[in-house]
Amino acid sequence: MVDITSDALVSETRDSIIPMPGMGKKVDTGFSAGVETEDHFIVRDGMEFAGTHLILDLWDASRLDDLKHMESAMRTAVEVAGATLLHIHLHHFTPSGGISGVAVLAESHISVHTWPERDFAAFDIFMCGEAQPENAIPVLKRAFQPGRLIVSEHLRGVVSER
Amino acid sequence: MVDITSDALVSETRDSIIPMPGMGKKVDTGFSAGVETEDHFIVRDGMEFAGTHLILDLWDASRLDDLKHMESAMRTAVEVAGATLLHIHLHHFTPSGGISGVAVLAESHISVHTWPERDFAAFDIFMCGEAQPENAIPVLKRAFQPGRLIVSEHLRGVVSER
Repeated sequence: MVDITSDALVSETRDSIIPMPGMGKKVDTGFSAGVETEDHFIVRDGMEFAGTHLILDLWDASRLDDLKHMESAMRTAVEVAGATLLHIHLHHFTPSGGISGVAVLAESHISVHTWPERDFAAFDIFMCGEAQPENAIPVLKRAFQPGRLIVSEHLRGVVSER
Repeated sequence: MVDITSDALVSETRDSIIPMPGMGKKVDTGFSAGVETEDHFIVRDGMEFAGTHLILDLWDASRLDDLKHMESAMRTAVEVAGATLLHIHLHHFTPSGGISGVAVLAESHISVHTWPERDFAAFDIFMCGEAQPENAIPVLKRAFQPGRLIVSEHLRGVVSER
């Protein structure tokens, strides 16, 4: 585990938002007003889609082998996103201490896989309906203090691509 | 549920492979030789990364409300990919019949969320190490007979982006 101070992290953190091609135009999640259909598809900025899938790669992150901390962070992430937890399962690998697991939500899921020996964690956050998956990002940053965070946003189920 | 014959589906199926930008160059998964590091990162075509994440949107698909069929398809997908199932959890929503769930693997996960009322399913398949996630695609096509399948490949944990 790399021992890095909070101060160093703040200045070193660089975020990237990488929109996927062919997945419709970039949506400023959390800021645009949206309308939810009866079956929980979203209509926003004239586009209809099932939900937003955020792919997060965390490098130079800490506490990636701490199972209780992971569960607590994921539960908080679900809560701040306004989502509903149905089921959580985390698996602890030995001897690396790596964690693999998922929170199944009424609005989709959050998954995590960590490589503590690389200080690397791969999260994905998929939420449909009125949940706000982007609210989970600061929770994960605070919990795991990544030196570098790469975020991609991927709209799922874009009706115009049907 | 749209009633479409197998014959019609074969001719109508259009697949797209959409590589993500900034995620390293496209890897011909399943065909390139790779070397696995001790901590299960992959070294292939001179690039080192944690694993391959496939994002699948299925439209005009069938049997999206059939829980037993879903579990069977996911177990087969895990098997043909050469992965190891640790835990499977599927949630059945009422009244839509929609399914949300995940298979947690030693090599990462497969998740699914279905909207039977839209004939739409969102899968993601993330596998590290020597598993071959692309082998799961024909299994899911056979099981759910999508009229349209959109596949994106996303390399996770690309070391050069660290």
